[in-house]
Amino acid sequence: MSKKWVYMFSEGDASMRSLLGGKGANLCEMINLGLPVPDGFIVTTEACTAYNAGGKVLSQDVKDQVSACMANMERSSGKKFGDASNPLLVSVRSGARASMPGMMDTVLNLGLNDAATEGLAKLTNNPRFAYDSYRRFIMMFADVVMGVSKHTFEHALDEFKAQKGYSSDLDMSADDLKEVCNLFKAVYKQNHNEEFPASALEQLYASITSVFQSWDNPRAFIYRRMNDIPYDWGTAVNVQMMVFGNMGDDSGSGVVFSRNAASGENEIYGEFLINAQGEDVVAGVRTPQPFGDLKKTMPAIHDEFIDYAKKLERHYKDMQDMEMTVERGKLYILQTRNGKRTAQAALKIAVDMVNEGLINRREAILKVDPRQLDQLLHPNFDPTALKNAKPIGKALPASPGAATGRVYFSAKDAELAAERGEPVILVRMETSPDDIMGMHVSKGILTVRGGMTSHAAVVARGMGTCCISGCEEIRLDMPNKKFELDGHTIKEGDFISLNGTTGYIYLGEIETVEPEISGDFAEFMSWADCVRTMGVRTNADNPHDAKVALDFGAEGIGLTRTEHMFFEPDRIPKMRKMIMAETEEDRRAALGELLPFQKQDFAGIYEVMGERPVTIRLLDPPLHEFMPNTEEDYAGLSKIMGKTVEELKAKAESLHELNPMMGHRGCRLAVSYPEIAEMQTTAIIEAALQVKKEKGFEIVPEIMIPLISEEKELQYVKDICVRTADKLICDSGIKLKYMVGTMIEIPRACLTADKIAAEAEFFSFGTNDLTQMTYGLSRDDAGRILSDYTEKNIFEGDPTARLDQTGVGELMKMAIAKGRCARPGLKLGICGEHGGEPSSVMFCHDIGLDYVSCSPFRVPIARLSAAQAALNQRKED
Amino acid sequence: MSKKWVYMFSEGDASMRSLLGGKGANLCEMINLGLPVPDGFIVTTEACTAYNAGGKVLSQDVKDQVSACMANMERSSGKKFGDASNPLLVSVRSGARASMPGMMDTVLNLGLNDAATEGLAKLTNNPRFAYDSYRRFIMMFADVVMGVSKHTFEHALDEFKAQKGYSSDLDMSADDLKEVCNLFKAVYKQNHNEEFPASALEQLYASITSVFQSWDNPRAFIYRRMNDIPYDWGTAVNVQMMVFGNMGDDSGSGVVFSRNAASGENEIYGEFLINAQGEDVVAGVRTPQPFGDLKKTMPAIHDEFIDYAKKLERHYKDMQDMEMTVERGKLYILQTRNGKRTAQAALKIAVDMVNEGLINRREAILKVDPRQLDQLLHPNFDPTALKNAKPIGKALPASPGAATGRVYFSAKDAELAAERGEPVILVRMETSPDDIMGMHVSKGILTVRGGMTSHAAVVARGMGTCCISGCEEIRLDMPNKKFELDGHTIKEGDFISLNGTTGYIYLGEIETVEPEISGDFAEFMSWADCVRTMGVRTNADNPHDAKVALDFGAEGIGLTRTEHMFFEPDRIPKMRKMIMAETEEDRRAALGELLPFQKQDFAGIYEVMGERPVTIRLLDPPLHEFMPNTEEDYAGLSKIMGKTVEELKAKAESLHELNPMMGHRGCRLAVSYPEIAEMQTTAIIEAALQVKKEKGFEIVPEIMIPLISEEKELQYVKDICVRTADKLICDSGIKLKYMVGTMIEIPRACLTADKIAAEAEFFSFGTNDLTQMTYGLSRDDAGRILSDYTEKNIFEGDPTARLDQTGVGELMKMAIAKGRCARPGLKLGICGEHGGEPSSVMFCHDIGLDYVSCSPFRVPIARLSAAQAALNQRKED
Repeated sequence: MSKKWVYMFSEGDASMRSLLGGKGANLCEMINLGLPVPDGFIVTTEACTAYNAGGKVLSQDVKDQVSACMANMERSSGKKFGDASNPLLVSVRSGARASMPGMMDTVLNLGLNDAATEGLAKLTNNPRFAYDSYRRFIMMFADVVMGVSKHTFEHALDEFKAQKGYSSDLDMSADDLKEVCNLFKAVYKQNHNEEFPASALEQLYASITSVFQSWDNPRAFIYRRMNDIPYDWGTAVNVQMMVFGNMGDDSGSGVVFSRNAASGENEIYGEFLINAQGEDVVAGVRTPQPFGDLKKTMPAIHDEFIDYAKKLERHYKDMQDMEMTVERGKLYILQTRNGKRTAQAALKIAVDMVNEGLINRREAILKVDPRQLDQLLHPNFDPTALKNAKPIGKALPASPGAATGRVYFSAKDAELAAERGEPVILVRMETSPDDIMGMHVSKGILTVRGGMTSHAAVVARGMGTCCISGCEEIRLDMPNKKFELDGHTIKEGDFISLNGTTGYIYLGEIETVEPEISGDFAEFMSWADCVRTMGVRTNADNPHDAKVALDFGAEGIGLTRTEHMFFEPDRIPKMRKMIMAETEEDRRAALGELLPFQKQDFAGIYEVMGERPVTIRLLDPPLHEFMPNTEEDYAGLSKIMGKTVEELKAKAESLHELNPMMGHRGCRLAVSYPEIAEMQTTAIIEAALQVKKEKGFEIVPEIMIPLISEEKELQYVKDICVRTADKLICDSGIKLKYMVGTMIEIPRACLTADKIAAEAEFFSFGTNDLTQMTYGLSRDDAGRILSDYTEKNIFEGDPTARLDQTGVGELMKMAIAKGRCARPGLKLGICGEHGGEPSSVMFCHDIGLDYVSCSPFRVPIARLSAAQAALNQRKED
Repeated sequence: MSKKWVYMFSEGDASMRSLLGGKGANLCEMINLGLPVPDGFIVTTEACTAYNAGGKVLSQDVKDQVSACMANMERSSGKKFGDASNPLLVSVRSGARASMPGMMDTVLNLGLNDAATEGLAKLTNNPRFAYDSYRRFIMMFADVVMGVSKHTFEHALDEFKAQKGYSSDLDMSADDLKEVCNLFKAVYKQNHNEEFPASALEQLYASITSVFQSWDNPRAFIYRRMNDIPYDWGTAVNVQMMVFGNMGDDSGSGVVFSRNAASGENEIYGEFLINAQGEDVVAGVRTPQPFGDLKKTMPAIHDEFIDYAKKLERHYKDMQDMEMTVERGKLYILQTRNGKRTAQAALKIAVDMVNEGLINRREAILKVDPRQLDQLLHPNFDPTALKNAKPIGKALPASPGAATGRVYFSAKDAELAAERGEPVILVRMETSPDDIMGMHVSKGILTVRGGMTSHAAVVARGMGTCCISGCEEIRLDMPNKKFELDGHTIKEGDFISLNGTTGYIYLGEIETVEPEISGDFAEFMSWADCVRTMGVRTNADNPHDAKVALDFGAEGIGLTRTEHMFFEPDRIPKMRKMIMAETEEDRRAALGELLPFQKQDFAGIYEVMGERPVTIRLLDPPLHEFMPNTEEDYAGLSKIMGKTVEELKAKAESLHELNPMMGHRGCRLAVSYPEIAEMQTTAIIEAALQVKKEKGFEIVPEIMIPLISEEKELQYVKDICVRTADKLICDSGIKLKYMVGTMIEIPRACLTADKIAAEAEFFSFGTNDLTQMTYGLSRDDAGRILSDYTEKNIFEGDPTARLDQTGVGELMKMAIAKGRCARPGLKLGICGEHGGEPSSVMFCHDIGLDYVSCSPFRVPIARLSAAQAALNQRKED
């Protein structure tokens, strides 16, 4: 027996979403609930996958099952497909597992041909309606299914009307429309080299094929990529008997939400158009009336519909987005689905439904997409202003939010402009730690190179600043302070706007609106905190960021990067002195000058964090990142150090590395210069002792050693930390506990985690670097590669943006198993950027991490994702 | 009961080498064989490990067991330790599992104090001998055990002699010597703040402690590092009753080999010194006589010794290096061990012993250290000339052999000098593919940066050219064509000499001698080939290298790097044209010009290799490596391409990457520019078709796709290859098989090897890159890091020089298991540099690879290593 490729609506239900698509499964479910749904059937997603894998031919099997279902519908409706006397007409719509704009548009009135149209005219006693439907169908079929542009037909129609001297469609009689149908068939033949198919089945097969084909079109690719939908899901095809909302004033169509999708208010909300098909409501040609008006014009329909809407909401336990059609006084429901809503509405609906007793808190938590929370925390463009804006480019949405401002090309220029009170967009080839101050004052950041985890992206997310990265199409002309994109030249001081949530770049100024956080947010998040079992910390390098993160619900700091502190203007010269030192003695002298700053930084963080855990990472980046990059800086340093600029440059040159990512950095610096680790440990411990003394907080600093690949190097650096710390604590006479642990960010650390755990009191996965090494792909150089790879469907998106569970995840699991085996109480966390990405956070929960740590603005996302992971796990248990 | 830390010689045997050290185990074995060995005991290596781990204190347990053994010896000898009437004297020597120079020197005559010396004087009736021994012992103990320099004593002695008016030691009477003993004790006290220990046991404990301590000294570290001896092996201590070769003309000492260690001839070979202790023979103060002379002077001793020597050789089945002492006409054997020998001798001895029936072929194979074979294949310094040479630096021994020549600083200068007939040493910061021609004409290569697997190292080994890499002490002054090292300034044209086997750099010219390959080599290697089960291929990029490798026994090519071909002067402009092309069309045009060259290269290789497998890797390096780096080159290219130099430079700049190792290279190039893979596949297949047609060879080209991290990218590139190849084969009408496989060189490829194996017909481990990614350590930047790491005992050598079995090996095992599970017949090889390193080759055998591939000059090493691995496995089975 051959596989079942086609299901009648009565054969399915809501649980068969993967096979039947969302739309189809819901149609089945509504039939089961006894709602008035026009009959029909579904060609499965498996048929789509088979079609796309099997040479793009619709198999005879599928065709046979389709025609059997049509026969079925003919029997139950008493109509006949393609028949002259009582024709059965159908609509054909795509329907993937997840709602997917960009797929094939709807084809309506399929089954019409010359004879059937004649029959329809007689049956409805309305030849004008019949021929109008026919000419629309010819055009729609040609355009949507056969790729003959509808403009060709519109042009022909305009000529016809001009010949006849008509000014409006309404001037055309039924005979005129019949003539237009013949004209359209001729246009079709001329453009497609074939007669317009008179066979209804032939029309149907072509339409089904076309839906499958549209799964492969570029718009679909882009949408799937943006929404993490796998290619192999495929789409189903829904074939449904036509009902007509355009049969007179006792007919009409509407699109209605069971609650307000923008505000979340519990009110039926939607639009209705008398004497129109559903497409007309969406198209916006005529202005529809609010659904509420039906109470006056069609009170029975109004009440009947509200009953159905409530029934569906109760059934699906979610706000519904429904399509309705009234044909000569009879109500049909054509579609229902969980409605899309704003973040604000999502929260309100979730909280309200709990209060209404419709769902419990756990169900509410699972109803909100964590990614949506971003909308609540960052500025957005004013939707009205955005309507008139034209994007001139698109790149990686590296840090969410919207920004508008004047373009500057260097951190220094950005700072100066900000001082003048200008809103600034910083445009750079790529950013470096040296740009921090300039990034800080900018509303938005745009880089030509770099991926989702490039320096610019990571730092911008930490700051909550909008950032778009890796826009390789930009031709940057630094010397002349301008760039070219999409044929436009943008000079210093010109306005551009960035949408860091979508990656779109716009010319000119677009108004932004600040987000409002409602009381629902706090209540909802407190429910999430109740169910989640995994901790959420933040990555914060200074007291300000720590405070922001605390307000967002962070429970500790998982990563303080000590290097950012060294870039401030009063510190960088001392840092450079340290690096330039030729002897340990000189290095120690320079470190001595840096110590008070570091101590003060850490004390500030401890004061904000109280007794919450604080993990501080020892110096990580290669030293050349701290080197001067202007002649001016060199001259200044030369004065301070009493060395010639040439000597300084020679030293800087000697620090140059071919692959700095895999060079002299991380713990390797501490091995070469133990005195750096000593100074940093001193600052960490002395600050803790001081704050403990002053405030009485029981602080337990966590010293984190980066870039470990071998247990002996951890041993070596740990020894320095422990020796230094123990002496300070002993001398102080104050009791202080502290921990020493390590980043796990090099594949070998995972492979030898048992040995490393013998030395480390905690592991923190640095999945940024771990992903780079595991893929052998540098985040700073990935832009070009990723765009080619996504274009060629090798990667369905940036593999570094979400944790790669197959490769990197395998290494993490290995590290956890080996690590916990060697040290049962080992504390495990993640401080890579993935700690704030929902699917990654869920994975971290599943593999048993104790906490995730992410940038402050991602903390709510992580909290909600962790809660959802905990709930999903309970379900499975 | 406490652990047994001390063994009498009669309690051990040769199998206890790990516990008793090599020297001790052999002493035990000789006792068992009934040879005249002075009695004694051994403090175990475990005691050393316990000492070094446990706070550097000799435990009471050990002391108790030592004194019990001394009591034992007193009973059996009838003498008493530290006794006035019949004193027992002992020697104390270190003895690790492997012979280890750089450890503590011997202490002789231990047990002497004032009273015992007096007793010895009476007993021997030779006070002069007794006090001479005593003063020597005081000095030796002070120097070796207590760290009081012997020069202090020598100085005091000189003053004493001056006071007395003596010119020679022989002028001193017994009483003078007694006075000297008192003087030495005073010097000892003055320098050590303690009386010279009169207690014999105290002397003994101090000496044992000192041996353990010396395991931790810098010389020992260096030696271990050079010879891959783990720190945790520890050393044993041998305590043995003294016998005296310096008791008159019926006494003497000798060092004798059972065969000639230089030539391998089967003849007793050694030296003997009448009336002397063993140390005197080694010290070379008096000229010893050949051992053969004993036939006249001490015929009985001579014959007795030869009996023992033969017995030991038969027993150990190896050439022996023995120490003998004759005390008043009685022969003692003090030590035996397998003798060190030259590579030539090693082969001759192995072959001779098989012919003599002493060992079988399998045993012979295990007797030769594969690393030694290098000596046979490369020039070496003339040993006499080397004696007068002073090294001025030392760095990584990147490619073996010796070279002497004039220094040049650019590839071009090197080429010009070579054309003038000068021997050239090329000195570079680091080399790039652009330097290939210059490297080719050089006798030796010296780089400032880079590790054992840097570009310079890999390419030099491939060429068989001596290379030293990563000499970070060099201050290179390129503009002025000179460098500084160890206080010397070396200018262009100056002579230096390099020993690529040891890493030493010498000032000036040192004569080199070409190696001679004897018939023994061929015979011996044929035995190895008989037992090995793993294939040995070579990495060769051109017909010449392929031929060299064939002569060395390669069975195929495991890696042809296609990029090297593009650097030849007639090709590089075309390559650059291809890279600079703005459109696919222009790129295809340039590729069309390159095709005939590639085809010709491959045809040449096929012709040399006949029907042996040839694996060709598609283009791998980032494109910017091919860019011009002189103004001249840019000007030339500008003319050819009709673009301005500025345009070309802008394009070159756009190719710049921050971490090219993890950038746009390998299969990623083929994804971006499928036409490159198409051209290369065309060349591979067309060449194969042509050679098959002309010569009738059944060639099966293996197309290898590099840098795969994800199965879909392999699928994508493989599709290009298969489509291209199948069309060519079909059009040709000739039957041709070919394979498509992949490098496994990215951690993620190992982690997802099951999926990758579904697409790949073979895996070839690229362990160079795999090691870099697994460690997160760039080979080009590793120099500084490695020197700090080895200095601080974190790495015991370059972790990239031998395959890291713990980390990288784990990934390989995972890849093999997953790969073979998905494709049972999967062919597995390695083409990283480790394919020619003995321990790595053995590991490859153990984990089940089908073949290793290495540079031509390493092929014999790989063959022997693979044979030894097969034999070791059989033993274990």
